[in-house]
Amino acid sequence: MASSSSLTLSQAILSRSTTHASNPLPSFSLPTYSALKSSTNPTTPSLNLSARAAPRLTTRRRTIRASAVVETLDKTTDTALVDKSVNTIRFLAIDAVEKANSGHPGLPMGCAPMGHILYDEVMRYNPKNPYWFNRDRFVLSAGHGCMLQYALLHLAGYDSVKEEDLKNFRQWGSRTPGHPENFETPGCEVTTGPLGQGIANAVGLALAEKHLAARFNKPDSEIVDHYTYVILGDGCQMEGISNEVCSLAGHWGLGKLIAFYDDNHISIDGDTEIAFTENVDTRFEGLGWHVIWVKNGNTGYDEIRAAIKEAKSVKDKPTLIKVTTTIGYGSPNKANSYSVHGSALGAKEVDATRKNLGWPFEPFHVPEDVKKHWSRHVPDGAALEAEWNTKFAEYEKKYKEEAAEFKSISTGELPAGWEKALPTYTPESPADATRNLSQQCLNALAKVLPGFLGGSADLASSNMTLLKMYGDFQKATPEERNLRFGVREHGMGAICNGIALHSPGIIPYCATFFVFTDYMRAAMRISALCEAGVIYVMTHDSIGLGEDGPTHQPIEHLASFRAMPNILMLRPADGNETAGCYKVAVDNRKRPSVLALSRQKLPNLPGTSIEGVEKGGYAISDNSSGNKPDVILIGTGSELEIAAKAADELRKEGKAVRVVSFVSWELFEEQSDAYKESVLPAAVSARVSIEAGSTFGWAKIVGSGGKSIGIDKFGASAPAGKIYKEYGITAEAVIAAAKSLC
Amino acid sequence: MASSSSLTLSQAILSRSTTHASNPLPSFSLPTYSALKSSTNPTTPSLNLSARAAPRLTTRRRTIRASAVVETLDKTTDTALVDKSVNTIRFLAIDAVEKANSGHPGLPMGCAPMGHILYDEVMRYNPKNPYWFNRDRFVLSAGHGCMLQYALLHLAGYDSVKEEDLKNFRQWGSRTPGHPENFETPGCEVTTGPLGQGIANAVGLALAEKHLAARFNKPDSEIVDHYTYVILGDGCQMEGISNEVCSLAGHWGLGKLIAFYDDNHISIDGDTEIAFTENVDTRFEGLGWHVIWVKNGNTGYDEIRAAIKEAKSVKDKPTLIKVTTTIGYGSPNKANSYSVHGSALGAKEVDATRKNLGWPFEPFHVPEDVKKHWSRHVPDGAALEAEWNTKFAEYEKKYKEEAAEFKSISTGELPAGWEKALPTYTPESPADATRNLSQQCLNALAKVLPGFLGGSADLASSNMTLLKMYGDFQKATPEERNLRFGVREHGMGAICNGIALHSPGIIPYCATFFVFTDYMRAAMRISALCEAGVIYVMTHDSIGLGEDGPTHQPIEHLASFRAMPNILMLRPADGNETAGCYKVAVDNRKRPSVLALSRQKLPNLPGTSIEGVEKGGYAISDNSSGNKPDVILIGTGSELEIAAKAADELRKEGKAVRVVSFVSWELFEEQSDAYKESVLPAAVSARVSIEAGSTFGWAKIVGSGGKSIGIDKFGASAPAGKIYKEYGITAEAVIAAAKSLC
Repeated sequence: MASSSSLTLSQAILSRSTTHASNPLPSFSLPTYSALKSSTNPTTPSLNLSARAAPRLTTRRRTIRASAVVETLDKTTDTALVDKSVNTIRFLAIDAVEKANSGHPGLPMGCAPMGHILYDEVMRYNPKNPYWFNRDRFVLSAGHGCMLQYALLHLAGYDSVKEEDLKNFRQWGSRTPGHPENFETPGCEVTTGPLGQGIANAVGLALAEKHLAARFNKPDSEIVDHYTYVILGDGCQMEGISNEVCSLAGHWGLGKLIAFYDDNHISIDGDTEIAFTENVDTRFEGLGWHVIWVKNGNTGYDEIRAAIKEAKSVKDKPTLIKVTTTIGYGSPNKANSYSVHGSALGAKEVDATRKNLGWPFEPFHVPEDVKKHWSRHVPDGAALEAEWNTKFAEYEKKYKEEAAEFKSISTGELPAGWEKALPTYTPESPADATRNLSQQCLNALAKVLPGFLGGSADLASSNMTLLKMYGDFQKATPEERNLRFGVREHGMGAICNGIALHSPGIIPYCATFFVFTDYMRAAMRISALCEAGVIYVMTHDSIGLGEDGPTHQPIEHLASFRAMPNILMLRPADGNETAGCYKVAVDNRKRPSVLALSRQKLPNLPGTSIEGVEKGGYAISDNSSGNKPDVILIGTGSELEIAAKAADELRKEGKAVRVVSFVSWELFEEQSDAYKESVLPAAVSARVSIEAGSTFGWAKIVGSGGKSIGIDKFGASAPAGKIYKEYGITAEAVIAAAKSLC
Repeated sequence: MASSSSLTLSQAILSRSTTHASNPLPSFSLPTYSALKSSTNPTTPSLNLSARAAPRLTTRRRTIRASAVVETLDKTTDTALVDKSVNTIRFLAIDAVEKANSGHPGLPMGCAPMGHILYDEVMRYNPKNPYWFNRDRFVLSAGHGCMLQYALLHLAGYDSVKEEDLKNFRQWGSRTPGHPENFETPGCEVTTGPLGQGIANAVGLALAEKHLAARFNKPDSEIVDHYTYVILGDGCQMEGISNEVCSLAGHWGLGKLIAFYDDNHISIDGDTEIAFTENVDTRFEGLGWHVIWVKNGNTGYDEIRAAIKEAKSVKDKPTLIKVTTTIGYGSPNKANSYSVHGSALGAKEVDATRKNLGWPFEPFHVPEDVKKHWSRHVPDGAALEAEWNTKFAEYEKKYKEEAAEFKSISTGELPAGWEKALPTYTPESPADATRNLSQQCLNALAKVLPGFLGGSADLASSNMTLLKMYGDFQKATPEERNLRFGVREHGMGAICNGIALHSPGIIPYCATFFVFTDYMRAAMRISALCEAGVIYVMTHDSIGLGEDGPTHQPIEHLASFRAMPNILMLRPADGNETAGCYKVAVDNRKRPSVLALSRQKLPNLPGTSIEGVEKGGYAISDNSSGNKPDVILIGTGSELEIAAKAADELRKEGKAVRVVSFVSWELFEEQSDAYKESVLPAAVSARVSIEAGSTFGWAKIVGSGGKSIGIDKFGASAPAGKIYKEYGITAEAVIAAAKSLC
């Protein structure tokens, strides 16, 4: 990918993991521009929109204190300059969309004022290190409006969005894709676009902050202390996921989550009157939020400032600031209509908008005074980080143990030898359900991984996900690690994406029945896309769950995740394999893992191993020689036992049989050709697979000469053993298939 | 499946489609039991729980009027008898779960009072024809409590739930599966269990009623006039989908939707305090519902009755009746705890509960007086249907045209020759996006299919789904056919399931971007399972959508639906194929269809046809002879054009090339072996597939000797042509692959 900035993605990631931890910068002094804070300028009335006090630069050098640098809520930057900055944001968005002839100018034009106030006056960040731990997080949940964020990152001095990046908006290889992508654009915290995901990610980010603050802050040193801001629109509000996560945010009392609801009354199909007439304020009050209404989001800068101040004063509730705006503000003929939502304005309307807003500049121009005004964020941000680094260095001296844990979380460097905590088993170990074996792993990992936490969507006692040494993360006990998501699968997944992306060493897991991945698939796809290493603990993974019937029995789900890019679908057969799956899942910090686990007991099989799981597919038993078995039996999860039993029978009849455990297709695919040939030799076409799920996809593994035993219809309600028998998922069926082939 | 009832499933379906339409029953007289309505008994105070007036049977015969038979809201059946009936329901649930040693007794024990009042006093239905058109609909959204509904259907006299069915609860082949399934148990309207689906189905049922009433009712004849009742629990309330659909129900003003919220404060993980502390009442007020609180749902029969009466008096809003109950009411040691939610009580606690509730009877016993009391529903129900049939016969005389349309909707008999309305195309027809061609089909079908209606999740202008001859279905214009779902994909799918299951001739379609099937997959799976022939119009079906980038580009979605049972995944390549897909989709009334449609223009290819589509896969061009092409090129959708281009080039070089359009794997799979061999001869191993999506699954089609060109990673943000080229989805790639094989 083309990159001309001084901070490339890999460097940024490097800085993310090393800056404050192994190489803390010393505190140092920088110039500041005190006149931008009008408390030093008593002639500027704090709530007078017509105030036009000129900015007054000072050259006085002093040590910068974070709280003094950016907290200007009571003050106003010269309003004319704010207007100019806001219009700069608007036109950067207009121009980029126009050049690409693709994109969404409406939201940036309407939300530019709140965007300006957030990035210029409120948020604490370091443009030159987008991964500084204690930065305020910003999420554009209405991700289609990404030009708003790109314009802000550009003005703030982030190297990820240079002028040429704005000019390459939505083009091949650019760092300014059609929706915000954290893996492409440092400064974007998460990946949004699919509506409702961003507000859920923001809840996860705010949860992580509350949790880490409770665990690590000391009365004399608050090393975790940041806000999470989010902008969401009508579309996000309509999505069910947003109600799920906002209900949880209210329940958890996430007081440092401040959400701006861009209330512009327009969605793609037209006025929201046609489908969205609920009272959002009332709903959020019901959800336990503090609600503020900014009636003039287009020019009411002080209203916005006052709302943020009020939001910060409410410590025990998240705040929704409903900001009534005009979509496409400034466009004389398209503002307040759906036509400005998702298309370029067109040259004529761009001209008209330039005239209307008094904008004489060329496309992509940032006026000098605006540039100068924003330029302080680079030194200020460096100072903020430096100050924090000093604070952390002091913390580390006083609180060694906590600092070590904190560093693991903030850098992603896991404690050496953590994998030794994973349990191992022998064939003599008692049979057990892999969901129970999973719980043993979860509890073992929680002891050695400081950032390990998670929970279930109201199925903790079925998914077996409780961490026994910890209590519940709740409003009053945020230091605990068991998360209680309620029956909110989709929200759970997306919250975990936010948790995972807060800090590289936080490892969230979440759980429900495997079939209910259907509820959360959109969030899981984002995990895969945005490289969030969430661990999905999915139990009751087949017809083996029995009586709950077809609504609860996954059939096509293994196949559906095997087809999804950048996600590991893992189906362990016993204790060692379950431990192996957790080894893989924890190791894969940029790839989510889905563990499909049994409700029913399974024996510990001879030949299974953690190392085998890491290769994706491996032989657990073999009585052939010269890599020429008569037949290869391939099973996963609960059906590996059946394959093993069938092999025993076939061997009694003199056959040379290899049994292969095929835990993860993705991991196997990544092995060398030589290894793959050693497991599945091309010359052996007699192959039988067995899996209590769809046979879709298995033809690739068993080949044209092989047979697949599986289930290509819905399940049934009956005791598990009965369904297995009636559906032909049996050793007899494997034996018959094998005999027909060899 | 074992069936010992007098009304088998097939008979029931038959009666569904014929009873009132071709063979209306005459109006006739039946005995009634007027003393059960206490207005004839002035000594019974209507709101006095201690009233114990003995039932007084009369033998007076009179013509039954629907409104007189069942509307006993102001009156009380003898309370002792109600108590007994309620306890009968409780113990049928307890006993069935105990015998199965599996199931959920808690909800039926807590909700038995509201269940009794609904089925015994309020609802209008005919137990001997569960498909009578004008029946009130009941949905148990908290489907795990299905023993409540089975017990009620049993008492009411439905043939689908005999005593032996209760004894076979959750067993192989029984009609009483672990969650309610409409396709197994006549009397269950929909399939529930996955939480939140049922309330969404109920919104769909109520929408269908409001729509049909507006279209067909006349001032002198209201042939469409029923309520939709639903019971949902805390779990349903937490799911985002329920907020989506309840927002729509409020927006649409579905006044005949009455939802009982079983407010029992317990979910699987324990007290709802751990994850669900929002104020549900306030939220529903925000959503535009009328909200009533019944504080004593355990024994407050008159409170429940009064609430229903009040709900019915509110015509312009749906009503939520929050009924505070005790989960597992009656169990001395397990009531009000999660342990009674999802497990059998155990013999000891069953005994204790029998003692506690004063229940001396054997398991599965229905006391004679309870039986006698309920026995009136068979004759009353027959009378209700007969009365309606008479009314409809009169309607038919006066309103011939409307009656014909209505009959098509209520029976599912589509107008003869409807498929002739589908457009056809020639290679000379202008290139167009299949989403636009789809709109031509939708509009053609809406003219000839009376029950055809649908809409998009706020993407009507992108999905191209507007019916031009109709307006919007809105609160004040419910006769219209364009549904505006807002950005609520999940709710949309589940609402369409409810619409489809309201009447066999209603054919709902719904639309969004194909990638956002991830948001609604749980509802789509239920479509497939519950045999709801919903048509999913899914546009922007590949990287061809371009600049919106990977969050919006489906990759694994075709594979994920091909793996799902009982759903048709269709991907047309041009105009004729789009028409063919609609032919298939409308024909398949018990199987949903997913149409993957292009954003970009595609040429009309020589050789495509509606008939070809119906076979799933077929040759569109071939210069080979003797069924022995040198190579077979297989494409779907937008890539069929690429395959055709590659074939042209290869043929120029003297190759014998067959091009196969593989529109639907499922339909192809259903063809004869001879047909399949004629398209994909076993002897021809040189096969190349091309599809702008995951190659997962294609190995089965191209075989071990073939090659698949596709995309096994996430997409990118850039103009579509650029991505196609960079990702190697090109004719050149097909040609190279073909040459490597032949």
